[in-house]
Amino acid sequence: GFASLDHQRLHRSGFTEVVYCAGKTPEQSAIILERLALRGECNVLGTRADQAVYDLLRTKVDDAEYESLSRTIVIRRGAQKSVGQVLVVAAGTSDLPVAEEAAITAEVMGNHVERIYDVGVAGLHRLLRQVDALRSAQVIVAVAGMEGALVSVVTGLVDKPVIAVPTSVGYGAQLNGVTPLLAMLTSCVPGMAVVNIDNGFGAGYMASMINQMGSPA
Amino acid sequence: GFASLDHQRLHRSGFTEVVYCAGKTPEQSAIILERLALRGECNVLGTRADQAVYDLLRTKVDDAEYESLSRTIVIRRGAQKSVGQVLVVAAGTSDLPVAEEAAITAEVMGNHVERIYDVGVAGLHRLLRQVDALRSAQVIVAVAGMEGALVSVVTGLVDKPVIAVPTSVGYGAQLNGVTPLLAMLTSCVPGMAVVNIDNGFGAGYMASMINQMGSPA
Amino acid sequence: GFASLDHQRLHRSGFTEVVYCAGKTPEQSAIILERLALRGECNVLGTRADQAVYDLLRTKVDDAEYESLSRTIVIRRGAQKSVGQVLVVAAGTSDLPVAEEAAITAEVMGNHVERIYDVGVAGLHRLLRQVDALRSAQVIVAVAGMEGALVSVVTGLVDKPVIAVPTSVGYGAQLNGVTPLLAMLTSCVPGMAVVNIDNGFGAGYMASMINQMGSPA
Amino acid sequence: GFASLDHQRLHRSGFTEVVYCAGKTPEQSAIILERLALRGECNVLGTRADQAVYDLLRTKVDDAEYESLSRTIVIRRGAQKSVGQVLVVAAGTSDLPVAEEAAITAEVMGNHVERIYDVGVAGLHRLLRQVDALRSAQVIVAVAGMEGALVSVVTGLVDKPVIAVPTSVGYGAQLNGVTPLLAMLTSCVPGMAVVNIDNGFGAGYMASMINQMGSPA
Amino acid sequence: GFASLDHQRLHRSGFTEVVYCAGKTPEQSAIILERLALRGECNVLGTRADQAVYDLLRTKVDDAEYESLSRTIVIRRGAQKSVGQVLVVAAGTSDLPVAEEAAITAEVMGNHVERIYDVGVAGLHRLLRQVDALRSAQVIVAVAGMEGALVSVVTGLVDKPVIAVPTSVGYGAQLNGVTPLLAMLTSCVPGMAVVNIDNGFGAGYMASMINQMGSPA
Amino acid sequence: GFASLDHQRLHRSGFTEVVYCAGKTPEQSAIILERLALRGECNVLGTRADQAVYDLLRTKVDDAEYESLSRTIVIRRGAQKSVGQVLVVAAGTSDLPVAEEAAITAEVMGNHVERIYDVGVAGLHRLLRQVDALRSAQVIVAVAGMEGALVSVVTGLVDKPVIAVPTSVGYGAQLNGVTPLLAMLTSCVPGMAVVNIDNGFGAGYMASMINQMGSPA
Amino acid sequence: GFASLDHQRLHRSGFTEVVYCAGKTPEQSAIILERLALRGECNVLGTRADQAVYDLLRTKVDDAEYESLSRTIVIRRGAQKSVGQVLVVAAGTSDLPVAEEAAITAEVMGNHVERIYDVGVAGLHRLLRQVDALRSAQVIVAVAGMEGALVSVVTGLVDKPVIAVPTSVGYGAQLNGVTPLLAMLTSCVPGMAVVNIDNGFGAGYMASMINQMGSPA
Amino acid sequence: GFASLDHQRLHRSGFTEVVYCAGKTPEQSAIILERLALRGECNVLGTRADQAVYDLLRTKVDDAEYESLSRTIVIRRGAQKSVGQVLVVAAGTSDLPVAEEAAITAEVMGNHVERIYDVGVAGLHRLLRQVDALRSAQVIVAVAGMEGALVSVVTGLVDKPVIAVPTSVGYGAQLNGVTPLLAMLTSCVPGMAVVNIDNGFGAGYMASMINQMGSPA
Ligand SMILES: Nc1ncnc2c1ncn2[C@@H]1O[C@H](COP(=O)(O)O)[C@@H](O)[C@H]1O
Ligand SMILES: Nc1ncnc2c1ncn2[C@@H]1O[C@H](COP(=O)(O)O)[C@@H](O)[C@H]1O
Ligand SMILES: Nc1ncnc2c1ncn2[C@@H]1O[C@H](COP(=O)(O)O)[C@@H](O)[C@H]1O
Ligand SMILES: Nc1ncnc2c1ncn2[C@@H]1O[C@H](COP(=O)(O)O)[C@@H](O)[C@H]1O
Ligand SMILES: [Mg+2]
Ligand SMILES: [Mg+2]
Ligand SMILES: [Mg+2]
Ligand SMILES: [Mg+2]
Ligand SMILES: [Mg+2]
Ligand SMILES: [Mg+2]
Ligand SMILES: [Mg+2]
Ligand SMILES: [Mg+2]
Repeated sequence: GFASLDHQRLHRSGFTEVVYCAGKTPEQSAIILERLALRGECNVLGTRADQAVYDLLRTKVDDAEYESLSRTIVIRRGAQKSVGQVLVVAAGTSDLPVAEEAAITAEVMGNHVERIYDVGVAGLHRLLRQVDALRSAQVIVAVAGMEGALVSVVTGLVDKPVIAVPTSVGYGAQLNGVTPLLAMLTSCVPGMAVVNIDNGFGAGYMASMINQMGSPA
Repeated sequence: GFASLDHQRLHRSGFTEVVYCAGKTPEQSAIILERLALRGECNVLGTRADQAVYDLLRTKVDDAEYESLSRTIVIRRGAQKSVGQVLVVAAGTSDLPVAEEAAITAEVMGNHVERIYDVGVAGLHRLLRQVDALRSAQVIVAVAGMEGALVSVVTGLVDKPVIAVPTSVGYGAQLNGVTPLLAMLTSCVPGMAVVNIDNGFGAGYMASMINQMGSPA
Repeated sequence: GFASLDHQRLHRSGFTEVVYCAGKTPEQSAIILERLALRGECNVLGTRADQAVYDLLRTKVDDAEYESLSRTIVIRRGAQKSVGQVLVVAAGTSDLPVAEEAAITAEVMGNHVERIYDVGVAGLHRLLRQVDALRSAQVIVAVAGMEGALVSVVTGLVDKPVIAVPTSVGYGAQLNGVTPLLAMLTSCVPGMAVVNIDNGFGAGYMASMINQMGSPA
Repeated sequence: GFASLDHQRLHRSGFTEVVYCAGKTPEQSAIILERLALRGECNVLGTRADQAVYDLLRTKVDDAEYESLSRTIVIRRGAQKSVGQVLVVAAGTSDLPVAEEAAITAEVMGNHVERIYDVGVAGLHRLLRQVDALRSAQVIVAVAGMEGALVSVVTGLVDKPVIAVPTSVGYGAQLNGVTPLLAMLTSCVPGMAVVNIDNGFGAGYMASMINQMGSPA
Repeated sequence: GFASLDHQRLHRSGFTEVVYCAGKTPEQSAIILERLALRGECNVLGTRADQAVYDLLRTKVDDAEYESLSRTIVIRRGAQKSVGQVLVVAAGTSDLPVAEEAAITAEVMGNHVERIYDVGVAGLHRLLRQVDALRSAQVIVAVAGMEGALVSVVTGLVDKPVIAVPTSVGYGAQLNGVTPLLAMLTSCVPGMAVVNIDNGFGAGYMASMINQMGSPA
Repeated sequence: GFASLDHQRLHRSGFTEVVYCAGKTPEQSAIILERLALRGECNVLGTRADQAVYDLLRTKVDDAEYESLSRTIVIRRGAQKSVGQVLVVAAGTSDLPVAEEAAITAEVMGNHVERIYDVGVAGLHRLLRQVDALRSAQVIVAVAGMEGALVSVVTGLVDKPVIAVPTSVGYGAQLNGVTPLLAMLTSCVPGMAVVNIDNGFGAGYMASMINQMGSPA
Repeated sequence: GFASLDHQRLHRSGFTEVVYCAGKTPEQSAIILERLALRGECNVLGTRADQAVYDLLRTKVDDAEYESLSRTIVIRRGAQKSVGQVLVVAAGTSDLPVAEEAAITAEVMGNHVERIYDVGVAGLHRLLRQVDALRSAQVIVAVAGMEGALVSVVTGLVDKPVIAVPTSVGYGAQLNGVTPLLAMLTSCVPGMAVVNIDNGFGAGYMASMINQMGSPA
Repeated sequence: GFASLDHQRLHRSGFTEVVYCAGKTPEQSAIILERLALRGECNVLGTRADQAVYDLLRTKVDDAEYESLSRTIVIRRGAQKSVGQVLVVAAGTSDLPVAEEAAITAEVMGNHVERIYDVGVAGLHRLLRQVDALRSAQVIVAVAGMEGALVSVVTGLVDKPVIAVPTSVGYGAQLNGVTPLLAMLTSCVPGMAVVNIDNGFGAGYMASMINQMGSPA
């Protein structure tokens, strides 16, 4: 068959396999999502899904939800929880799709999520106003395109782990996100680690793992 | 002066400023390390230090310790603790300097540290033998050079967060660590985030932050 | 003329020239494929062909076959054989077009081909279940996108040559396949060699040459 | 001959040709510096000079000065002035050689220069303490290695032009300064332009040109 | 909300926040532009705007202007001025969109702007004819694609600061502007600094800051 | 105006300015081409022109010719000549657009041009059959995509200068022509120099200059 | 301990673990080599070894052999065989260290090895003279630096699999072997696969696996 | 043996094989040079040779000459000639080793050579003073490091073919010569082709081939 689902994943890592719809036909994605939903043990998540996947899926799973900004599909199953606090911080309006992918991933995995958006370092006072909010999170996902300086500044202000997500927002020497990726990796501030460009999903997943350590259900 | 120490750091982030000796004269490094030791509040750590820094420092701080494999200097001050469990896994013998930098950083910051070395995927049974040990850690630092495949495999076997450290071990297309760095960033396994090439310090620091969340002293 | 066919190829290398349709007009591709079919000595293969080439060709060669997933055209001519065993292993569903290009190339060249798909290292047990199947092949084509770790793991489990094919599946730091390409080239496991990104054809061709050594018709 | 001095330069651009000693033998550098000093019209500057150049030069020009940290040679000639204010800000101790090359270049060209060093964003309060000083400059040279975030933050705090200088301080993904170079070029804050990696000379020269517009002698 | 406007910017840096429309929906861009226009204190500028943004905006702000070559939106508010002289020089016809973005930015910010276009070094006499014009500017914005040699030549001819803008005009080894970017950064002529590829806005903004120093209103 | 034609070019370099239509509107291209045709002194050439430019131009210059494979426009004016011999060799069918741009450029500039196409090194006998033809040329333009090995082999077989043109034909590690570009630059065979990727025009122009030295009209 | 030997390797893949001495202290390398020799089951191979490793090892294993050109250490143990035929072809004299590493690896693993050296394409007749020798091999290892064109030409002349090894021989745009690596990966000739830059060991190992299929002992 | 000399080369291309000493032991280089000298048919050239090669060679060939700046060895044999005119132009003093390698290569191959050095575009009048000299050459070799703008300017001033040689002179974004290499390849001026970074030999050889066409002995 075209897919060999990893049914041990829920057992092994606390969450079922997440469906990356980008490389699949709508039919393939819908079949896999439906199959996971039928098991009914925990929430089901599809990322990088377009409307076509959702339309097809809805004919079979009528309570599936679609969030178009982040292009995620969610099917709620099993016990719902919302523990601890994951904070998603984003530098600019254009970074929102990635930030929302992170936020939704963390929520679906049972974490309480807060958001602070459009606080890039060009107007630093906007960020400094939020220091107390930053410090009250258990773990922070910091999302930024262009040169990504927000991440260094945020990490320097808190004593909790930061997951940095470079985005492809920008042009020219921004190299589709390679520049903030490299910048975040070489940050002068410790207490941060980095995921792939535009990988809101990976950041939300990692943040969930960390947050749940400090906040056992 | 040449250095403006960040004395708020201990207060803000739970650990004092760590001295990166690579870009400084031995004199500068020794002066800063001594000054931090005199405050006496918490352990002092110097990284990328060569013997010359240590020799100079010893004339002033006689209980300073030097670990030559990882090139770290440690001065023990304040309360010593060893909570939770950080596990450092390394693929090959050549990755040990980086792995040890991570392990020592985590120990100095008050974490209990375990080590599993030379378990690259070329002989997978060596790693599979260690699955129980992998699963008993709170957070894992996974260190690998060459193509870095160890990190994906380890992350797939556990349900705890993994901090990945690519090393510059290898030649040719390994591009001084750029190859495993990129590979780790694009891993098909979620639950991992990446630090800079050879940055054992950054990984140990991040692991400490995560471990202490799950294991408050 | 626009094409100067290499008619010595069959004689010299055991298989006629394969038509790379990507850089040609549908007319050019169809004419060359027809010309090769008319010689009738051995199977004819066209790669990277779209539907337009096939439609045009069918008006002239009515037993031409088109396989749309891998975008290959096959015209069966001469003696058909199926010797030895080439195994094609692929990491994820999105790698199938490349995997199928390899499988069809090897089949058309007279090899017996087996397939194992969707066994990425994220769920390692799926691969470990297949160890006996892996070990029964004469030569393995291992196809993987993202970071390509599957290839190192597979090569470490067998004692037969592995041809590695990186794919462009992934985003961001995956750099359209450059990342798994570099990773495979710097693998810590010997017994493997690498072809170009998404080059299923080249891998199937190389596997055929090797398989036929161990399995002379 | 090996050198064809640009004697119109003083006339054309307000300052004589500066000698880049890196690509020359000590003999060549010393001869050119002496020849410029003999004209006596304005200060003479040599950059990237090592001790050997200076030792040779001193046998001929006994009031030549050598500043070893920045590796510059200065011979004071003509009217000395010190107008306006160029502020050189540097992120860390290791950036000082580059920062000093900028500062000395600007001083030699007749500008009043202030310095603020070791104010990287890891300890942001150190920089925020200096906001009034930052705002009192006519033009700022901002020097940073690692990810270079200091430059975005500084530019966001002032209303004067900023010349950004990325340095090669760091390792791994810092790529010998390419990372902060790209980061500075894609900064989200306008009002800044960038010179080559480690090019303190170019930054000091550009700052001088700007400062002298606002502060005609 | 999706946007957190930096209202201190006008106060801090002399010009209000400029709207980068590329990463926003037309609705978002239009709302922000309108909001800024309502404050009425100074000119409002939107860059990288397409016709859709303008059409939407015109329903609310009927004196908004659209310049399609440079894709800028201007809403004139507050006192209009035109001080000093910013000169925009461009190498070829294809560089005009970027050159005009720089020119309009500088005009909107209150500077007198001159233009000299299509004077690439292939026909050097065209540039040499303009030496007097070049020398009468306060600050020059030099725009060039292909290899960008124009910038070095212009900088060598004047005694005023030059802001260099590489463009993505060209193909192959031009690498979408990376080549002239690198070339300008390593120019053998001092007195120049560089902004991002195709960043006419950043160059115009920087030129304005410099020009206003030498030409206080 | 938008264009400042270099009317000294014919005088200075023996051929009038060639119009690169890629970066211009059809109107701009047509106006410039017409203007050059009106001077009537020598042939007029437009490169990278699409049908729209030609259609517009034909309404004004009715003897303009369009060659769609190479996307060139030619207007014949002045004395026509055809001296010496430029040989254009191409590796595969997909390289023909670039090869033809070179051939037409050389013809329009007054050179006798021969062509040998589809002689890639995969079937070396096809090339070896042509050795006499290769040796009878005055100068060779060698065009190849993929890895570009044809160029080294051709250069090793002749005693005349070879102009190498890498093309963007291929995929994956071919990097849109960067790979054969680098390969040609590092060829182990002397007697060759390289132009930009896909730059048939530049190669034809250079070949013309060389050919005319050995074959004065 | 510092090393966890993979004792299943001989069983699993037909040859014991090979010691990569580059990343180890001489002591570590010598201990591991000695330990493997004591098992006595099959030949022991150390690569990238310098004289210091050998000198130390000789004190313990007095029949160890050192081949300084390729920097390999061999300890002969178990049954010696020499089956089939692996042919190592190298382009130039400077490629010999890599070519010899491949040849010795294949010999140590029990293959009959032939060598043809200094047959780069600059003087093609030297290679064409060897066509019969090329065609009599079971598998070819083709080693080349600079642009690596030899590999395409050799592969086009034979009907056996070719393992290509790019070397770092060359300068400038050769990029330490990246250029021939990319060139080999994008070769227009099928029937070849590529190993890492300078990886003679990997090529010899892969060739051995293939050769032994066609030549079972 | 280690070397298989290409004795047909003189016959085929008009000059015997040139010895690239960089990748050979002094013994190997000296033996090959001596062997070529013994044939006595034409001049013998060794490039990238250090003093050790020369000292060894002198014990056997006592009229061998060594030029240390360009690191070339010359042994004069056969008829000496000096036809036409090759002009070598260099931007700065640091480019002289490369420029001299080109000049000596062309001289040894029988061409009359002129030199114009230190005429970079920073002081354009120095170059413009030389326009008549530039125009009297048959072919020009233009050598430049940093951003390489000299080459575009020179090519725009003449009607003869220009061979461009980028050098590794510079730092940071100059990327060891990659920047001027790319810049020269994308120059807006036709009539130029490019050789590898620092490849004075290749440029002199190519210039010789062209010059001899226009100036048959
Ligand atoms: N947006 C995403 N970015 C990166 N990886 C993802 C994303 N969504 C799902 N994945 C992972 O991608 C893998 C998908 O594999 P497959 O669906 O078998 O091709 C799983 O291991 C997921 O955890
Ligand atoms: N999918 C493919 N990828 C890479 N090379 C191919 C592919 N299909 C065919 N080829 C090779 O590409 C060459 C085609 O050359 P031509 O058709 O003359 O442009 C032949 O040598 C084929 O063996
Ligand atoms: N440290 C430096 N970095 C970059 N350029 C420099 C430096 N010092 C001097 N220069 C410039 O480099 C050029 C030196 O050229 P030359 O001395 O002729 O090789 C002059 O135009 C100087 O303005
Ligand atoms: N196909 C082409 N590739 C590269 N350069 C070209 C091409 N066609 C024309 N040119 C050159 O590009 C320049 C055109 O500049 P402009 O038309 O002013 O933008 C001229 O110097 C032409 O010689
Ligand atoms: Mg904003
Ligand atoms: Mg090991
Ligand atoms: Mg799957
Ligand atoms: Mg500091
Ligand atoms: Mg023009
Ligand atoms: Mg063909
Ligand atoms: Mg040779
Ligand atoms: Mg000079």
